Amino acid sequence: MKTKSLFLIPLFLLSADVVSAQTPNHTSDSLFIKKLFSTSLTAGKSYDWLSHLTLKIGHRISGSYGAAKAVEWGEATLKNLTLDRVWLQDVMVPKWIRGTPEIAYISSGDSQTNSVPILALGGSVATPPNGLKSRVVEVKSFDDLAKIGKDSIQGKIVFYNRPMDPNVIETFKAYGGAVDQRVQGAAEAAKYGALGVIVRSMSHKLDDYPHTGTMRYGDLPRNQWIPAAAISTNGAEMLSAMLKLDPKTTFFFKQTSRNDGEVLSHNVIGEIKGSQFPDEIIVVGGHLDSWDVGDGAHDDGAGIVQSMEVLRLFKTMGYRPKRTIRVVLFMNEENGLRGGNKYAEVAKQKGEKHIFGLESDAGGFTPRGFSFDANDAQMQTFLSWRVHFEPYLTNHFTKGGGGADIGPLKNAENVMAGLRPDSQRYFDIHHTAADVFSAVNKRELELGAAAMAGLIYLVDQYGVEK
Amino acid sequence: MKTKSLFLIPLFLLSADVVSAQTPNHTSDSLFIKKLFSTSLTAGKSYDWLSHLTLKIGHRISGSYGAAKAVEWGEATLKNLTLDRVWLQDVMVPKWIRGTPEIAYISSGDSQTNSVPILALGGSVATPPNGLKSRVVEVKSFDDLAKIGKDSIQGKIVFYNRPMDPNVIETFKAYGGAVDQRVQGAAEAAKYGALGVIVRSMSHKLDDYPHTGTMRYGDLPRNQWIPAAAISTNGAEMLSAMLKLDPKTTFFFKQTSRNDGEVLSHNVIGEIKGSQFPDEIIVVGGHLDSWDVGDGAHDDGAGIVQSMEVLRLFKTMGYRPKRTIRVVLFMNEENGLRGGNKYAEVAKQKGEKHIFGLESDAGGFTPRGFSFDANDAQMQTFLSWRVHFEPYLTNHFTKGGGGADIGPLKNAENVMAGLRPDSQRYFDIHHTAADVFSAVNKRELELGAAAMAGLIYLVDQYGVEK
Repeated sequence: MKTKSLFLIPLFLLSADVVSAQTPNHTSDSLFIKKLFSTSLTAGKSYDWLSHLTLKIGHRISGSYGAAKAVEWGEATLKNLTLDRVWLQDVMVPKWIRGTPEIAYISSGDSQTNSVPILALGGSVATPPNGLKSRVVEVKSFDDLAKIGKDSIQGKIVFYNRPMDPNVIETFKAYGGAVDQRVQGAAEAAKYGALGVIVRSMSHKLDDYPHTGTMRYGDLPRNQWIPAAAISTNGAEMLSAMLKLDPKTTFFFKQTSRNDGEVLSHNVIGEIKGSQFPDEIIVVGGHLDSWDVGDGAHDDGAGIVQSMEVLRLFKTMGYRPKRTIRVVLFMNEENGLRGGNKYAEVAKQKGEKHIFGLESDAGGFTPRGFSFDANDAQMQTFLSWRVHFEPYLTNHFTKGGGGADIGPLKNAENVMAGLRPDSQRYFDIHHTAADVFSAVNKRELELGAAAMAGLIYLVDQYGVEK
Repeated sequence: MKTKSLFLIPLFLLSADVVSAQTPNHTSDSLFIKKLFSTSLTAGKSYDWLSHLTLKIGHRISGSYGAAKAVEWGEATLKNLTLDRVWLQDVMVPKWIRGTPEIAYISSGDSQTNSVPILALGGSVATPPNGLKSRVVEVKSFDDLAKIGKDSIQGKIVFYNRPMDPNVIETFKAYGGAVDQRVQGAAEAAKYGALGVIVRSMSHKLDDYPHTGTMRYGDLPRNQWIPAAAISTNGAEMLSAMLKLDPKTTFFFKQTSRNDGEVLSHNVIGEIKGSQFPDEIIVVGGHLDSWDVGDGAHDDGAGIVQSMEVLRLFKTMGYRPKRTIRVVLFMNEENGLRGGNKYAEVAKQKGEKHIFGLESDAGGFTPRGFSFDANDAQMQTFLSWRVHFEPYLTNHFTKGGGGADIGPLKNAENVMAGLRPDSQRYFDIHHTAADVFSAVNKRELELGAAAMAGLIYLVDQYGVEK
């Protein structure tokens, strides 16, 4: 009887707000979410997809052959899901090329020479063709540069050696507290006449992997750009120790990296049209590009396949969403965010209404919960949904950022959210040659995909308050 | 003034119950626990210790050279901490010997022969000297044996192939739902005249590692004992597929494992005497023995070094406990539990009062919380302490078992608890050659040690209600 009476409601009342206000059916929601987890864990596709993306395509920095192959694969794979629509969105991306393998060594006194592993930072210029050799000034911060002063820095290599703070439990926060050295270190040091910059890798772990990542010269004139590279944490420890033994210790490095203009690339987009509110768009995504070392398995192959899996789970389970669900495989998160910016720009041009975005770009580890860029009222609703995620230990819901790619979509009314996996191992491999398929655990990946699908389902069912 | 007035309380009132009822000081407790985490993460010893135990000593099954070395190392390392007392407790342990490497292959038709990786199960007898070759009966349960019947099983090899349930989120529960095949499988199959038993490895992961583990013949007469081995999950899938193609498929395996009586070994015990209630004992521990493959890094090297670290953190931070804190490195959890039983037996003989036990034997992964074998009133108190563990995302407190080694200490009044780390990766490596040092993440291990120290600290401060 109740079901029938629904048909008596005048059509104009069937707006999003009515639906938002509908009483949640906790039992059926919980059952549906249970089925999502079960399907992901027993008949999921995310792990197989990740295997292809990492082992058969491999790394895929913007503008590379790998990135082009990844776009092709993403489009073909989404088309296989028989979504309502799959398309490519043009986006111009910067093309940065690492060049030949870097060389670096530390020289102390006359005889001591130690090779150390480095990687040019993304966006960095080359050293002079024969490399750069100079004395070294070790600093922990930009303030140190000011204290030491131009006279002592001029003509030397600045070595940033402030580690990520091990006391900070959530490692992304520790990363945020150290990454200024990598991003702005060269631009800052150049102001003091430094010839080059070496940055301690962003990692808690002491090992021999250098961690690359983006850097920017900001508004520094082109003729003042200096080369910048990351040194492994073991290398940083050694360099620091040798400087203490002998302040005249020199550092040599050679890299042939260069910026090669812009090239055409693409965001890959697929959608299931909403049955009731097709104009309300829910986006789920990650970024398809990766750094040019390792295979971009956790960063962000995991986020890509989890996002695709959300739509596949809905299709497989015969779930027809009320709202339009879009998966976006964003291009160029790592060194430009052009994909995220372009997607938001086009959405604005078209007057599209994005009510919710969810990004997975924090690794494919065991999901702990979600962070929400949301107002207090919206947050209350999300907190009331935690009960559905308790059985999966994925109920740590916090206020916080959604993700870089979906950031440009944020407005005063909508919500951007991010999957929050366990973060302890992430920076051991982030932006390194060790970010490979075998570092991803199948169940952890699948649990994340299911949790994302569960959250998207609830947003689809109940909408987002303003 | 308040402090002074304490001295006016008649001594006989200074019982545990008075202390239990004292008002918790949330601020100072939180600060102390924060310091525990900080010390563990920045100046911890657990990871270095684990490196020694796994890489320099290696695996250490009861009665082996490795086990003897581990006892020596445990005693020496605890003595270095200048605890109030360190001692060895004699315990007789079964000595089971794997013998020469196992051989196994599947034959189908005349020509198809595939080698598959197996490991004899701990406690299993050998095959005949030239191995055992026979047709195979695949089953999923002991009920299947009854259905198939003696006539069809007699003279064959029973192949238990019920996988761990991937739908169960906490993998220990899935393990509990499948491990009867490994533990009782041989004894059950022998009743139907089977010649030997092959058991699918207890793992969600499809790979080539067989997982050993304990098995028992129960009250089966000695002359009916049949050999039992674990086959890798890939091997199990292959065997099952080949049986479907050709029901006459045979399995060959050869193992020379044997039970070699009992030998003397030891629990290693260290304690800090309580300053106010020395007769109330709090135990923290793990098990020093491991299986004889891999290095027992997660199982249970992690638990050993975390338990030792609890006492070291207290010493380092100058914390003098009110109650007696004991670390016990239990011997023989894997194939006999003799260490746990002996410790409880001696405690009973001496009339010792153990108010609380905490075991870490679920891997060295990111800690999620604790399980408590406790009554409702006690549980309420523990739940009120969760707030202290929220900053470390280790606040998932549930009712449940403490641990195998401390189990025999449980009585109507005390509480046994277990550290509960993330469980998704544990059974990928459990009891295999892949349970090695590099599978343990330093921060995850250190977070677990700190969480354990935090819980022990609170129990020391406030006691345990009855």
